[in-house]
Amino acid sequence: MNQEIILKSRPKGKPTNSDFEINKIDEPQLKEGEVLLETQYISVDPYLRGRMRDEKSYIEAFKLNEPLSSALVVKVLESKNDSFKEGDYLTGMLPWKKRQVSKAKGLRKIDEGEVPLSAYLGILGMTGLTAYFGLTHIGEPKKGETIVVSGAAGAVGSTVGQIAKIKGLKTIGIAGSEEKIEMIKNKFGYDVGINYKSTETMSKAIKEAAPNGVDVYYDNVGGEVSDGVLVNINQFARIINCGAISLYNDTEIPTGPRVEPLLIKNSAKMQGFIVSNYEDEFGEGIKQLATWLKEGKLKFEETIVEGFENTPQAFIDLFDGKNKGKMIVKI
Amino acid sequence: MNQEIILKSRPKGKPTNSDFEINKIDEPQLKEGEVLLETQYISVDPYLRGRMRDEKSYIEAFKLNEPLSSALVVKVLESKNDSFKEGDYLTGMLPWKKRQVSKAKGLRKIDEGEVPLSAYLGILGMTGLTAYFGLTHIGEPKKGETIVVSGAAGAVGSTVGQIAKIKGLKTIGIAGSEEKIEMIKNKFGYDVGINYKSTETMSKAIKEAAPNGVDVYYDNVGGEVSDGVLVNINQFARIINCGAISLYNDTEIPTGPRVEPLLIKNSAKMQGFIVSNYEDEFGEGIKQLATWLKEGKLKFEETIVEGFENTPQAFIDLFDGKNKGKMIVKI
Repeated sequence: MNQEIILKSRPKGKPTNSDFEINKIDEPQLKEGEVLLETQYISVDPYLRGRMRDEKSYIEAFKLNEPLSSALVVKVLESKNDSFKEGDYLTGMLPWKKRQVSKAKGLRKIDEGEVPLSAYLGILGMTGLTAYFGLTHIGEPKKGETIVVSGAAGAVGSTVGQIAKIKGLKTIGIAGSEEKIEMIKNKFGYDVGINYKSTETMSKAIKEAAPNGVDVYYDNVGGEVSDGVLVNINQFARIINCGAISLYNDTEIPTGPRVEPLLIKNSAKMQGFIVSNYEDEFGEGIKQLATWLKEGKLKFEETIVEGFENTPQAFIDLFDGKNKGKMIVKI
Repeated sequence: MNQEIILKSRPKGKPTNSDFEINKIDEPQLKEGEVLLETQYISVDPYLRGRMRDEKSYIEAFKLNEPLSSALVVKVLESKNDSFKEGDYLTGMLPWKKRQVSKAKGLRKIDEGEVPLSAYLGILGMTGLTAYFGLTHIGEPKKGETIVVSGAAGAVGSTVGQIAKIKGLKTIGIAGSEEKIEMIKNKFGYDVGINYKSTETMSKAIKEAAPNGVDVYYDNVGGEVSDGVLVNINQFARIINCGAISLYNDTEIPTGPRVEPLLIKNSAKMQGFIVSNYEDEFGEGIKQLATWLKEGKLKFEETIVEGFENTPQAFIDLFDGKNKGKMIVKI
């Protein structure tokens, strides 16, 4: 039975299952130039929350009563398109459907082999590239500097820490459980881990962990965790605003300490980005990440949820930090 | 009678005259290698407020019961230093004294001539360079873009608007009186002027003035004025955090809307700086500013207060916006 997942209502605050609906749909009919695809893996990502709002952003808002979409790994069941053949695995932005036809525009063939297919939604996909380009292009990390990463156990954060380590930085990761702290230190090589949930005063904890101050802050979280980091930045610090998961569900504009005085005092930079800004360099980025992966310098973690119908819940769980590393749904 | 102005107490909130003290001091005795200097002009600047706090910053805090200092224009009364001779005019960072001796380190000779001497504290001094480097290096202005400048009638802001105009941008200036609005439009060529004191909703006023959105925001003010600008930024906007005069007197850490979501959504950059970051390029900057000045492309405004003893009040008046353009004390 073919199915799709649609946006039933725009979430107010934290999304709930009732904001989504799983519908039975017809089997797709393959036409000339198209491929018939079967979904293997679905990427659920915090940024999708932004697309659920009906407002102008860098990417079009999801429409009500239409399927959501994200990065998928799909298998070609049948092909009437010269570029791809039956049995190929592809990845790209596609709607949340079990089976669908596509003209295959923007889809890319991936290799089954040295890494699992799901890695193309994570370390060799958007999350790996997000870590890589944000850190290298905005963060400009230099050997001997100190970096703090929030959301350090997440898909992006765990990769950022490892790349920073490769570049010779002291790495401090912030995460929300003892289990995650163990993981970021033992698996991802973070020098220091700070559990923000059991830390009374973040600013003090950061100061102790970074006695020479913070040169680079890769922020996936925003909010109060960031407040504690920002008061510890050094002159010429670079702050990479990758995500603000702690704020995404806020229904009013969140307030906090103004950052201008800190930025002026330290000649520091805060810069937001989305990975597609660096689209022209994706090839180079994937090549570098794949090289590090083969050399054993990069490890990754996935939380794989089974079942198409569990996709909304997997997405919701992101906001409770239930994932370690990349959250992926296996169909 | 020789005099100095010392910091008597660290201001709480807005500075008052009682935070300063004017003392009678001995006439200085000239030694070998020194010059005897008579102060002609004193620059009073908002950033000095930061130095009155006892905290780590990019520049050393003023010490209690010692003279304050800033950029001065001085005349050489007598010289035992080979680099300068009697009658020379010099500029540099010096303590607030009527007469003093100095080894002349860091002092620079300036020419009496095409521009008044006081200009070397403004358009051809730190404020001109602050406008120039902040705008060109961080703002990266491009022809056809829209810039908003807060504190547009101030020394820095009025120069920023004119340089942006030379570079082909649409210029929108924010200031705090109808008189200032007339001045920034008629004298400094701003395309649009917004009086924030008589504007109900800044965000709406900016939206009307910048229907294509804001590409560059040169911020001298911070606070609520900025909040209204930031919600109107375009993708890849550059925000130059030059000053935050509206926040300098706050005794608690000021709060406001968090900026991370806006920066992420727009792939935008906020960057603080101080002019000395670009010290290596000062020569080039002054040359460019002097060229524009001679070509009649740059105009400047000064508010000149007379009398050494009025220096503290002139400084205090900055926070009430009593100056138009550069605030200078003439001795």
